[in-house]
Amino acid sequence: MNHAIAVDLGGTNLRVGLVSPEGEILFQDKVPSPSKLKTQESLEEIASVIQKVIEAGGRKKIAGIALGIPGIVDIKKGVIYQAPHFPNWKNLEIRSFFGKRFSTKVVVDNDCHMIARGEAWKGAGKGLESFMLLTLGTGIGGGIYWKGEILSGDSGFGGEVGHIVIETEGRRCDCGSRGCLEMYASATGILHEIEKDTDGGENRRRFLEKIGGISKVTVEKIYHAAQEGDIYAHSLFQKLGKYLGIGIASLVNAIGIETVILGGGVSGAFDFFVDPLKEELARRTYKETARRVKILRAALGDEAGLLGGARSILTATR
Amino acid sequence: MNHAIAVDLGGTNLRVGLVSPEGEILFQDKVPSPSKLKTQESLEEIASVIQKVIEAGGRKKIAGIALGIPGIVDIKKGVIYQAPHFPNWKNLEIRSFFGKRFSTKVVVDNDCHMIARGEAWKGAGKGLESFMLLTLGTGIGGGIYWKGEILSGDSGFGGEVGHIVIETEGRRCDCGSRGCLEMYASATGILHEIEKDTDGGENRRRFLEKIGGISKVTVEKIYHAAQEGDIYAHSLFQKLGKYLGIGIASLVNAIGIETVILGGGVSGAFDFFVDPLKEELARRTYKETARRVKILRAALGDEAGLLGGARSILTATR
Repeated sequence: MNHAIAVDLGGTNLRVGLVSPEGEILFQDKVPSPSKLKTQESLEEIASVIQKVIEAGGRKKIAGIALGIPGIVDIKKGVIYQAPHFPNWKNLEIRSFFGKRFSTKVVVDNDCHMIARGEAWKGAGKGLESFMLLTLGTGIGGGIYWKGEILSGDSGFGGEVGHIVIETEGRRCDCGSRGCLEMYASATGILHEIEKDTDGGENRRRFLEKIGGISKVTVEKIYHAAQEGDIYAHSLFQKLGKYLGIGIASLVNAIGIETVILGGGVSGAFDFFVDPLKEELARRTYKETARRVKILRAALGDEAGLLGGARSILTATR
Repeated sequence: MNHAIAVDLGGTNLRVGLVSPEGEILFQDKVPSPSKLKTQESLEEIASVIQKVIEAGGRKKIAGIALGIPGIVDIKKGVIYQAPHFPNWKNLEIRSFFGKRFSTKVVVDNDCHMIARGEAWKGAGKGLESFMLLTLGTGIGGGIYWKGEILSGDSGFGGEVGHIVIETEGRRCDCGSRGCLEMYASATGILHEIEKDTDGGENRRRFLEKIGGISKVTVEKIYHAAQEGDIYAHSLFQKLGKYLGIGIASLVNAIGIETVILGGGVSGAFDFFVDPLKEELARRTYKETARRVKILRAALGDEAGLLGGARSILTATR
């Protein structure tokens, strides 16, 4: 049976895995992301890690290579238009580069679409006909799973659920818009909340003192403070849940998909924000809709992207 | 060849048509909507118009009956949960009622989903693999067309694009939420704008004088005033276009569908609002996305719902 090579390319790490047809990661390598290198050098670096993983597989037959990349990826043409962590990449024909280099099938897609495929195959979405995945990290990414496929529209640009607008003239976003969901319901959103919070008063002051000042804030620290009962840390997750509920309500109203899977680092605080999320969702969807929506946690963690990438190769070549 | 009976049930009119397999409306009848009647009486009234249209068809073989209804319709169960124009209808098993009455196949769906099917078959969406339809009227309805199907999620509740949130604490909406798109970019939205506009000054005063006071405002009148060069009427459509651009940007970012078809009464003012719509869209989507999005006008007018309904029967029974 054919195996797949899956590449998960982030801003921090480059991860490459050899995945069996059953979804077992037989071997993987993780190196620092070549995000700062020139285009050609970054591609060579990725190719060398792929080569190493192929060699580690010995004589395993490889069905193809899947690449998951945060950014605007044309899945039909195999071209990357914009990738925030790779500022040198512009209109990069990445599929043809790796296709020629390794003489094999190559699939390129947005990283969160790969993660959604992984969760559908082996994670929280297993057995479901449809769900939306939101990855809550520095920003918010997404993958919409619908009847065995990722719904990402005509070119594959869809799933950018972090950039639905929840405040028409709200916080400025790197994408050029204002009031994007990810400016409120991600790690970046929480930091904005702390910075701009003028009502926090004594609770905020005590919280910041506890964690060593505003420059030291991380979502992990807020999480630990909330676990220890810190009122201000709690309130931050309550606000995040509320904003997330607003964004999810918009998505549920628009596409009617009733299962929502939350992944990414910030989803670790699920228990602290899920109740206000559900309250807001109930307020902003029809009664019968709200009754049916399920909010789940992603199950696969860091390996979801590799598994989903492998899945996209293994189903494409069956 | 089999023909279809299509029922388009609105708040004002009940329209029933006999449609040929080629999409010709051979006969149709239009009566006042039985929206104020008791549940049983309203169903009997619809049944009697259907009966009349079947009889008008003579010996034509009928493949089934399609019902398009504004509201929350479970397409799998054939149940209507909420229909704003039919306040007496609650959890109404409408498919089984008409199925038994006429001993034929019955399809029930949201009216805008039927309209989208009609535009896909014979209108602005003909030949397209995907598009989103937005109907701009008193509110905003929608139908998302994706690879030959309507994408409306697990139960069929999707397409409620009028209820994506663009202002978290914005204008109160009948649905229970706040800041829904339809409170800004529909006929209702324009009326709110006029009522709450304190900056309109002299232009607003002159406009209201021209049309006979605020109680006399209709979208048609604003349209005619704009055609005559009225500055304030123009500004209203500019604002509507801007809000619509925000909502459409959210949808395009989320699902990546790159063709948007605008229908409904307010879309008659297309030329007055399409430029600010596109500007706002460009500001709030990635460059490559914005470059690909097409904004079109719906082509079928009032008959779209009947044609789409017929299509849903004719494709279901092929």
